[in-house]
Amino acid sequence: MTDPSASWVSGWDTSGFPADALPYGVCDAGQGPYIGVAIGDQVFDLAKAAAAGLLPDIDPAAVSTGTLNRLMRQGPARLQALRARLHELLQRDGPSIDRNAAELCLTDQSAVLQKTPVHVGDFTDFYASEHHALRSMRAVAPDAQLAANWYAMPVGYSSRAGAIVGDGVSIVRPSGQQRVAGQAVFAPSRMLDYEAEIGLIVCADSQHGRPVPIGSASDYLFGVSLLNDWSARDIQRWESQPLGPHLGKSFATQLGPWVLPLPALAGATWPNPTASRCLPYLRHAGQFLFDIEVEVTLASAAMRSAGLAPVTICQANARDLYWDAAQMIAHVTSNGAPLRVGDVLGTGTISGPALEQSACLLERTSGGRAPLELPDGTRRSYLEDGDELALHGQVRRRDGVVLSLGRLRATVGPADDRQWAVD
Amino acid sequence: MTDPSASWVSGWDTSGFPADALPYGVCDAGQGPYIGVAIGDQVFDLAKAAAAGLLPDIDPAAVSTGTLNRLMRQGPARLQALRARLHELLQRDGPSIDRNAAELCLTDQSAVLQKTPVHVGDFTDFYASEHHALRSMRAVAPDAQLAANWYAMPVGYSSRAGAIVGDGVSIVRPSGQQRVAGQAVFAPSRMLDYEAEIGLIVCADSQHGRPVPIGSASDYLFGVSLLNDWSARDIQRWESQPLGPHLGKSFATQLGPWVLPLPALAGATWPNPTASRCLPYLRHAGQFLFDIEVEVTLASAAMRSAGLAPVTICQANARDLYWDAAQMIAHVTSNGAPLRVGDVLGTGTISGPALEQSACLLERTSGGRAPLELPDGTRRSYLEDGDELALHGQVRRRDGVVLSLGRLRATVGPADDRQWAVD
Repeated sequence: MTDPSASWVSGWDTSGFPADALPYGVCDAGQGPYIGVAIGDQVFDLAKAAAAGLLPDIDPAAVSTGTLNRLMRQGPARLQALRARLHELLQRDGPSIDRNAAELCLTDQSAVLQKTPVHVGDFTDFYASEHHALRSMRAVAPDAQLAANWYAMPVGYSSRAGAIVGDGVSIVRPSGQQRVAGQAVFAPSRMLDYEAEIGLIVCADSQHGRPVPIGSASDYLFGVSLLNDWSARDIQRWESQPLGPHLGKSFATQLGPWVLPLPALAGATWPNPTASRCLPYLRHAGQFLFDIEVEVTLASAAMRSAGLAPVTICQANARDLYWDAAQMIAHVTSNGAPLRVGDVLGTGTISGPALEQSACLLERTSGGRAPLELPDGTRRSYLEDGDELALHGQVRRRDGVVLSLGRLRATVGPADDRQWAVD
Repeated sequence: MTDPSASWVSGWDTSGFPADALPYGVCDAGQGPYIGVAIGDQVFDLAKAAAAGLLPDIDPAAVSTGTLNRLMRQGPARLQALRARLHELLQRDGPSIDRNAAELCLTDQSAVLQKTPVHVGDFTDFYASEHHALRSMRAVAPDAQLAANWYAMPVGYSSRAGAIVGDGVSIVRPSGQQRVAGQAVFAPSRMLDYEAEIGLIVCADSQHGRPVPIGSASDYLFGVSLLNDWSARDIQRWESQPLGPHLGKSFATQLGPWVLPLPALAGATWPNPTASRCLPYLRHAGQFLFDIEVEVTLASAAMRSAGLAPVTICQANARDLYWDAAQMIAHVTSNGAPLRVGDVLGTGTISGPALEQSACLLERTSGGRAPLELPDGTRRSYLEDGDELALHGQVRRRDGVVLSLGRLRATVGPADDRQWAVD
């Protein structure tokens, strides 16, 4: 019997990268960047495949490049044909005529360096988890309630596209203004935090001045990736009145290495129970909540030296969000603001109802009052220099197949104090 | 005697574009975009000049293009050489050897269409006028005070780079959520406003993770232009808790047609009295307040039909800002966030102390309670469909010479109600 997940490539059934997932990434094995898809424990090189004549429908220049933007600009018909062709080439039960040529396009994933997958025009970050919004507010003020607007719209804000980086980076601890004992001081952040989110990658330009109706949202959504919205809570807290977070967020945001296209999410999408009781422009009967579990692990420098395994500090699921992807697209364009290919919408921290589903440390440690105990004997209210943080994403389909969104890793580096010695 | 302002091009002494101003813009007279400089009543075509061999130091490709980004990437030495060469070519008292060839590169400004001058990576908008901040808060809550952070840092936020447009556009009235009688409704904004600002254009990439010391700020500042940060006050008011303005701003921001480079501002720069009493990273003795007067005029459709002249609704000066350009550059990078060529920093509304110096209608009409009377017999709390708004910028040098920043015009178009008929 034909199993669309099965591939002739090794590891298809254990890696989270079966033949019907095929997430896109930008890869480099030393000879310049190219677009690859993950299959089993390998990367399939689309530039090489196009040059070998295996991908007749796609412009070779669109896959021999350092971002997915040009590929996304090929448009839905060509992208659909490409996906069908890749599945044909890589599935176990497909025609084997081009298999030898296809095999020459494979590289071990371990031998490939992955780059930030898209060139981001605008980055909008939402705040779509009620659990996150409430728990993080209450970490600071126990009786806090969400303002009424939160339940009327997916609240969000613009953040810094130029600060978006990819997997495996060092995050320099940011310095900034904080209020300490009633005084403004400038110092390295002592409340460095992560936020586990899902990134929604935009694949079409919308017309400036014309909102995207919610029924057309999927035309603009290429796929999803992991996203880590690094946050400095002390900087954020002092600066945010009245214009919202700025430098507490803009020092770095990480985008995951693999972008899983929307068709691959079939079987892992769910209706949104709240989508029937909002204003018409946000109302829909589609399935735009995604069953994506994100596990976050932490390993201190001491743990790594001692050979201790990373500890899991969060296990959350994007299906628990209150506002979904279609609503975010409809809302962000509802005033006529344009979307452009490569724009990224972040869902906001995807925390669930349980404390262990807290997708940032502000929530997990109740604002630092309940630090985590690490196996090296130290405690963590917020991140320390040398800490290695990793997000691991898994899409859970109804048929039991689990797809990987890959890992998104970073190490916290010390603050840059060179300039602050000078007055 | 040699007058560096004097040119052999007509209008140099009346247009605001003398030979030592030379603002850059992106122009198109029907044969594709090119970089031009304004001189007298003409535009000097750098693409044509480079092709004719008149600009030996500059890459012709950097001036035969639709944005200033590539020109800015030529770096300070080449930009300085280009400016010296342009002055040599265009001044009255310079060598006349290439004058005939230079004359062939001139086009009447009236025959040239001007484009948005830069491709904007990130757009950060500040809130740097104390007069604006206080008067606009008090238009809503008479006893309001600024939060303490306002006096400690140039408060700002990220906004939507993809919504940046140029001169002469139609601004579609945005729709969005507002709270009416305690209920959230989705409707066209009834509080459409402008905000007259100065745009600071960034000409160099800073290293991600490395703040720009305030003493190096001028290395990153190419020049200034007019900026109109369109605002929908009703949308903004309802959405802003707790993440700040979003859709109330992101529908459109206009950037002026001419970018006046920093050297042209010599003689119009002033020290900042507050720059000695802030935290060290914002402290400096430089001159980064600019004497730029912005006049805003309004003409309704009825006024234009009746042949009535536009009325002046604001006359403000960027010299009245509390936070200056160097402080904005130091602050926005203080957490290690990178600047990229083409980034734009908006100063925020440049209102001065007098009511007539209110650089937005929220202030000028006290939140609509004191509407403006127009010559057509109508009143304006906020902008109406068909209103034509124009910002006019003038740089005032100590030597009495006035340089033009050009005009930034827009007409308000009706809301797009096509999609909202469908539920």
